Amino acid sequence: MPEVVALGEPLVQFNAVTTGPLRHVTYFEKHATGSEANVCVALVRLGVSCGLITRLGLDEFGLFIYNWLRGEGVDVSRIKFDPERPTGIYFVQRGYPLPGVSDVVYYRRGSAASALSPGDVDAEYIGGARVFHTSGITLAISESARDAAFRAMEVARSRNVLVSFDVNYRRKLWAREGDAVGVLTKALGFVDILFLDSDEARLLLGVSEPGDVFREVSARFGIGKVVLKLGVKGSIVYWDGKVARADAFRVPVVDPIGAGDAYAGVLLASVLRGLPIEQAVVRASAAAAMVVMTRGDEENLPREEDLERFLSGYGRQVDFR
Amino acid sequence: MPEVVALGEPLVQFNAVTTGPLRHVTYFEKHATGSEANVCVALVRLGVSCGLITRLGLDEFGLFIYNWLRGEGVDVSRIKFDPERPTGIYFVQRGYPLPGVSDVVYYRRGSAASALSPGDVDAEYIGGARVFHTSGITLAISESARDAAFRAMEVARSRNVLVSFDVNYRRKLWAREGDAVGVLTKALGFVDILFLDSDEARLLLGVSEPGDVFREVSARFGIGKVVLKLGVKGSIVYWDGKVARADAFRVPVVDPIGAGDAYAGVLLASVLRGLPIEQAVVRASAAAAMVVMTRGDEENLPREEDLERFLSGYGRQVDFR
Amino acid sequence: MPEVVALGEPLVQFNAVTTGPLRHVTYFEKHATGSEANVCVALVRLGVSCGLITRLGLDEFGLFIYNWLRGEGVDVSRIKFDPERPTGIYFVQRGYPLPGVSDVVYYRRGSAASALSPGDVDAEYIGGARVFHTSGITLAISESARDAAFRAMEVARSRNVLVSFDVNYRRKLWAREGDAVGVLTKALGFVDILFLDSDEARLLLGVSEPGDVFREVSARFGIGKVVLKLGVKGSIVYWDGKVARADAFRVPVVDPIGAGDAYAGVLLASVLRGLPIEQAVVRASAAAAMVVMTRGDEENLPREEDLERFLSGYGRQVDFR
Amino acid sequence: MPEVVALGEPLVQFNAVTTGPLRHVTYFEKHATGSEANVCVALVRLGVSCGLITRLGLDEFGLFIYNWLRGEGVDVSRIKFDPERPTGIYFVQRGYPLPGVSDVVYYRRGSAASALSPGDVDAEYIGGARVFHTSGITLAISESARDAAFRAMEVARSRNVLVSFDVNYRRKLWAREGDAVGVLTKALGFVDILFLDSDEARLLLGVSEPGDVFREVSARFGIGKVVLKLGVKGSIVYWDGKVARADAFRVPVVDPIGAGDAYAGVLLASVLRGLPIEQAVVRASAAAAMVVMTRGDEENLPREEDLERFLSGYGRQVDFR
Amino acid sequence: MPEVVALGEPLVQFNAVTTGPLRHVTYFEKHATGSEANVCVALVRLGVSCGLITRLGLDEFGLFIYNWLRGEGVDVSRIKFDPERPTGIYFVQRGYPLPGVSDVVYYRRGSAASALSPGDVDAEYIGGARVFHTSGITLAISESARDAAFRAMEVARSRNVLVSFDVNYRRKLWAREGDAVGVLTKALGFVDILFLDSDEARLLLGVSEPGDVFREVSARFGIGKVVLKLGVKGSIVYWDGKVARADAFRVPVVDPIGAGDAYAGVLLASVLRGLPIEQAVVRASAAAAMVVMTRGDEENLPREEDLERFLSGYGRQVDFR
Amino acid sequence: MPEVVALGEPLVQFNAVTTGPLRHVTYFEKHATGSEANVCVALVRLGVSCGLITRLGLDEFGLFIYNWLRGEGVDVSRIKFDPERPTGIYFVQRGYPLPGVSDVVYYRRGSAASALSPGDVDAEYIGGARVFHTSGITLAISESARDAAFRAMEVARSRNVLVSFDVNYRRKLWAREGDAVGVLTKALGFVDILFLDSDEARLLLGVSEPGDVFREVSARFGIGKVVLKLGVKGSIVYWDGKVARADAFRVPVVDPIGAGDAYAGVLLASVLRGLPIEQAVVRASAAAAMVVMTRGDEENLPREEDLERFLSGYGRQVDFR
Repeated sequence: MPEVVALGEPLVQFNAVTTGPLRHVTYFEKHATGSEANVCVALVRLGVSCGLITRLGLDEFGLFIYNWLRGEGVDVSRIKFDPERPTGIYFVQRGYPLPGVSDVVYYRRGSAASALSPGDVDAEYIGGARVFHTSGITLAISESARDAAFRAMEVARSRNVLVSFDVNYRRKLWAREGDAVGVLTKALGFVDILFLDSDEARLLLGVSEPGDVFREVSARFGIGKVVLKLGVKGSIVYWDGKVARADAFRVPVVDPIGAGDAYAGVLLASVLRGLPIEQAVVRASAAAAMVVMTRGDEENLPREEDLERFLSGYGRQVDFR
Repeated sequence: MPEVVALGEPLVQFNAVTTGPLRHVTYFEKHATGSEANVCVALVRLGVSCGLITRLGLDEFGLFIYNWLRGEGVDVSRIKFDPERPTGIYFVQRGYPLPGVSDVVYYRRGSAASALSPGDVDAEYIGGARVFHTSGITLAISESARDAAFRAMEVARSRNVLVSFDVNYRRKLWAREGDAVGVLTKALGFVDILFLDSDEARLLLGVSEPGDVFREVSARFGIGKVVLKLGVKGSIVYWDGKVARADAFRVPVVDPIGAGDAYAGVLLASVLRGLPIEQAVVRASAAAAMVVMTRGDEENLPREEDLERFLSGYGRQVDFR
Repeated sequence: MPEVVALGEPLVQFNAVTTGPLRHVTYFEKHATGSEANVCVALVRLGVSCGLITRLGLDEFGLFIYNWLRGEGVDVSRIKFDPERPTGIYFVQRGYPLPGVSDVVYYRRGSAASALSPGDVDAEYIGGARVFHTSGITLAISESARDAAFRAMEVARSRNVLVSFDVNYRRKLWAREGDAVGVLTKALGFVDILFLDSDEARLLLGVSEPGDVFREVSARFGIGKVVLKLGVKGSIVYWDGKVARADAFRVPVVDPIGAGDAYAGVLLASVLRGLPIEQAVVRASAAAAMVVMTRGDEENLPREEDLERFLSGYGRQVDFR
Repeated sequence: MPEVVALGEPLVQFNAVTTGPLRHVTYFEKHATGSEANVCVALVRLGVSCGLITRLGLDEFGLFIYNWLRGEGVDVSRIKFDPERPTGIYFVQRGYPLPGVSDVVYYRRGSAASALSPGDVDAEYIGGARVFHTSGITLAISESARDAAFRAMEVARSRNVLVSFDVNYRRKLWAREGDAVGVLTKALGFVDILFLDSDEARLLLGVSEPGDVFREVSARFGIGKVVLKLGVKGSIVYWDGKVARADAFRVPVVDPIGAGDAYAGVLLASVLRGLPIEQAVVRASAAAAMVVMTRGDEENLPREEDLERFLSGYGRQVDFR
Repeated sequence: MPEVVALGEPLVQFNAVTTGPLRHVTYFEKHATGSEANVCVALVRLGVSCGLITRLGLDEFGLFIYNWLRGEGVDVSRIKFDPERPTGIYFVQRGYPLPGVSDVVYYRRGSAASALSPGDVDAEYIGGARVFHTSGITLAISESARDAAFRAMEVARSRNVLVSFDVNYRRKLWAREGDAVGVLTKALGFVDILFLDSDEARLLLGVSEPGDVFREVSARFGIGKVVLKLGVKGSIVYWDGKVARADAFRVPVVDPIGAGDAYAGVLLASVLRGLPIEQAVVRASAAAAMVVMTRGDEENLPREEDLERFLSGYGRQVDFR
Repeated sequence: MPEVVALGEPLVQFNAVTTGPLRHVTYFEKHATGSEANVCVALVRLGVSCGLITRLGLDEFGLFIYNWLRGEGVDVSRIKFDPERPTGIYFVQRGYPLPGVSDVVYYRRGSAASALSPGDVDAEYIGGARVFHTSGITLAISESARDAAFRAMEVARSRNVLVSFDVNYRRKLWAREGDAVGVLTKALGFVDILFLDSDEARLLLGVSEPGDVFREVSARFGIGKVVLKLGVKGSIVYWDGKVARADAFRVPVVDPIGAGDAYAGVLLASVLRGLPIEQAVVRASAAAAMVVMTRGDEENLPREEDLERFLSGYGRQVDFR
């Protein structure tokens, strides 16, 4: 039984080889991604076992993701193939109109994972884990997937499995902003470990200052472990009463997508391995910086030795720029 | 007013750069395609004006197709942009499992073009043309698109515009084979110029031998111009009582997709330019051969001088193989 | 009739895929460029109609440019094809010897556009526009092209069409520096809107300080609208007595070629749309920054929404570097 | 416990992207290969479980192969990492000097797998299988690997596990031809299922005509299952007294490396699934043809449905060539 | 002093990475070529020393060619750099409109090599060689280059150096066909070894049947060594009274450009090494086949061992097609 | 006779086209490199003749390096080919785990150059030079190569040829750090011109402050010309009693490998051309910056004009970043 179980949609990413508006991009590079899948790979790279509950299309892209996750060492025993629905995909436009910023174009409506439902939630499987993880994306892609996520969170809570939740608010996936607020707020009621950024805090809580955010989530939802991401200012964590901070590591950005998943996965891996939260948050920040330096979300997720080399070498390398 | 008006869905094609199952393909190349759009480009390359009635997503891929068609000289004045629905796309797997054969994976459900409806059919525009062209794909992608196609065929018939129709049976686009048979058979009632292959003939007419096919379509639907494609055996045409044949030109196949559209477009262009059907069918066969020699459906569609060079040089080139 | 008419040579650009001296570059990427053509595309991207008067070789590269410009929406009705002369081309060496700097190698002598002559100047066409635009490159490529440019400027002046002129001094295109000074100085006598940089100001006017430059061009040539580009220091504009400034936006430079054309085109589009010069100059600066972030001159020219996203998001994006 | 256990060296292949002498090739494409690893993947693609006993360098290339094999579903539980020795690699020159022929340049001396030794042979693991497979390459790469292979064959024989052996004579891996003959001949004494080609038959047995080959291996080594590969003439199989033949499927050859492994793996998978040898040999031939159509040895190894599509469609596809 | 001295223009070739009309080709690959330069490289690959008399632009492309030729071992001591004129270049369109056929687009007018003149002809250098080689291209590119070629042929004749001449009629390089006939006919008066094809024979001699061609060139020009290339039918050689033939080797054609130069260079190398003409012609045919299998003219020119492998292995390789 | 003679191993470098861990890199780009070979090319680019004593495999990669060096103008007359041993190669991982930092994976054990021995040291050849150059890598690759290097240094000293030595400590090439210290310290006894960085100083001398380093090498080894590289802080040189400094030029780093060789080669070239050491050190720093801006070690080594353009233009280019 894996230490962590995640629920969510893996996606095939087609990343623009050249920067600029997609109209003018000729070549696209295929990658296996998806928020919760990224978290899983971040965990297994650091030696924490993880299984993903999901559905894939019984097609070449579904097989690609399945083999990729299995190859990385993620437990794929709870992945089901759907012969009717396709695997979700998306395209990434990079560096336009702004440098270091990416846009996405989704083709995921009606995907295999959108047919996730409570029936896919294996209570024994989740019950055997230490942490269950999902995100606001799973709540957004379909009603049945949302039901599955709520069911899984209930199961986890009932079996004393910590619920980790990344708000991951994606405007394009919700018909109305109000829908998102309602559903995401409801989800907070199940959460033990919360990841969000300032914009999401403002949307859901009406506040964005760290102190305010921590006070609100604690008071209203009883959440004791909160990670607030502040962009260029780094991140700040409120963890069972302790507060820890990490600056953002400045690196050249090729594609920022996946930074948040790297952060969440490495933070979870670090605390599950018993590291103090002060170290965990720095390691998580380092991993977030590492993954934005190349295309694809998972390729640069660090193994332990690479993470340590980053942390010990950062700032010491010859900086010709 | 263009000489030919077509109705159908343009698609962005992502063609595998390397052959083999898509699982293992890393790079994809973007092309503007779509059966009726291909026919339009085939026509304008040979100097016959053509306009396309369609809907595109108001997104980068929609803009890409719009600019591409405009650049080629297709009249884009009747193309509408849909801010809600995406532009349809698909992926091409080449050379696997069989050499010279391609598979497609569509992401076109709910596309902008699937929202085509009778309201998009500009009767004056069609009425000013000599030929109206559409295909069985347009009948398959949605009910409203089907209604639009039938409406357009009615308009054309009522204004003495010839209706050209390519059966283009795509199994993946129909829920049941029976649905396809019903709808396509109904369409034959409107057709003046019919393009189909042996398998389609067998499906719709129950016969596949040329003589039988011509007899059936004439007797049951009163169609006097029929093109029957026979794969390696070339094609045979029944045209107002005349019969013409053309062998297939043997060339190295990189991607066979688009061959049928090249054939249809060049045949229409040739007869509209007053060439005898015996020449038209050879030219159409040549164009079909030309487009399969590279990725993309439209890049190799010939201009007049290239078509003539192919015809005069074929078989004379140094054949080192 | 387009709002803006431009005259000048489009060129096919072969941009080095890898940086370093061209000796060691193996792959080159094809783009449609040319100073005045770039200005045209900048205009139409922002909704201002523009037509280009030019000549292209009746060859594959000429067809490429023609289709590209038509696809972008530029009016190509005044483009002529020359069956004898080739389309002009050039190669771009990037990032060597200095980072962020490009060199060009021209193969444009005797090109189709060098055969432009006064006979190509359609007075009615220019007379129907609000602005006529050309640059010092057109004055340099041949005598007949120079005559055509002067003829067009005369026509414009005589019909109250504003003459916009970018000095665009290219040392390689003039046999002697003195020739350039004579011709360019003569051109200033026709100009209403002038674009130049400090080096060009020094060459033509003997001064380079903004105040001096504005005083000189006003006093000697009666030009009331002057844009002085200052490189890293941004730009300063003297516009009918008003002075406006814009800092340069700092972005990663892939290829700086085309920045000046983006600036000119977006400034013209903005003032033609009635925006105050203070906004126009900031928008022009933004566009100049956008185009240097990728290979090719025109791909990153902004549509209105992308320009606004750049302006609102610049400096707010997560700057990992 | 997997049905098949194999022993041998996986290798990272760097395949020339362009054809011609490697001096002039600039780009190389990475693939996971190795004769016995290829056989394993061929088996698991067709649903037959397989485990590989081997050693990999504890380096990026070793991790690449490990994840690749795990991703494909091969049992990697008996793969050991060596922190001292590198993972073996090789380069592939394609299409030069002869079309359709490849050359290899090895960098495998002293590789991790060359340190395979009898201590790596897990008798229980082999004993639980139905077939044990290795090849003459494993006998060639080092003395300790050779000892391991002989030890494994002994174990298999002693536990009634069928020994499958592909001669795979590679001249470059043996100091002297005579060494190879001695060792390979000794190996034949352990074999139940033998794969060899005419040249290898001549080398080891002194005969190459099918009848002679079968008689010799039966008489001298008591081998009852023999596959003799005849190049363009296909293959002929002597299987417990039955004789079966298959023509070679003619397909465009991109890189012939791996054809023999595809053949062996698919033949084993087919007979293990209970198919008659007449079918197995045709399926094996088809798989051999499929893998030569692209770079890399394993990408085109067929899943059941692709194999069936090849067999049913071969010769029926439009052959434009 | 090199055994062979050649005179002619090296060119940088930009070969289309993808097939089809150049309009639609995005990437181009750089190669060093040029008819006489190709012959030089063919010679040195087979161990016959060769020097090239030419002029290059003092630019990146000129340096590229210079280093390439020097790297291959060609004597570059008589190559001069011109600081004013550019190095000649051209583009190659492949596989369109006909498979296996290439088109070229030259940008060589006014190139550095077009300024070759009699002053560049080093009589001592040529006098020390056994063979002097040039082609009809050198006679076409400019008057001064033509004068240089005639001067060099005179020098060679006067010093008993054999004159080798490849007609290489390029329609695009001559203003009028009649000009070519006059100049090329004049050149035949200097020739000892003549290479031509049937079309060229018809143009210059009015006959194309081998017997007629040999009779004419012997009778009218006293040439005793004639190579007549017959395309798919191979070639036939009349060599000091002996007649030898070679079939064309059938190989997949990627780009046929350079085949004739490979043929000429390898034939010269073979006879200079003392091989009988019957062998020389087969070797030349093999080399011609080898070079058409990849992009670029010189990369696949064979070294002795590769040529022998081709000859011994041709027809024996597994032909899956 | 070349002015400089170097001894060391050239290597084929396979540089990752994309950044990140090599596991996930698919394409690799081939380059000719090797520390002493890089120094040679740096010298000849600036007009100082240089010859390299080395051994290459008689294989495609050996031929590639040989032609490359010959093409660049390096004297290759003392390069021997080994038919038994392969040419050494290595792979470069870029930008991971740290931006701007590269890792190498060597496949050079048992390479042709590792068989260098004192017998390869041509005393006359070295004796005719002004400078002999080698590095600590040559001392590390094998005992016989080490003997050859010591022999060459002795020869040089005995003939009043200056010995230039770059410590180039590569941990992976030495079994134990202690071995390296012993051998490298012994080498210092022969050195006239020493290149080292702070880490190497600390390892060999126990000090790293410039003053301490200069005092130690002078006192203990009598070396009067010392270059100490300080990474981001630039470099400091102690040259016959004079002290000169240069800041590092800040440029975007694509691959830092080769910077030290560029520095050494350009410094030697500059002092051999009689430039004062203050200029030499700035030029060397510039060259080091230039080569890190692209993949490959030698492509960006400057010719005189490019070096001057870098020095005059640095800091003046439009810095959009």
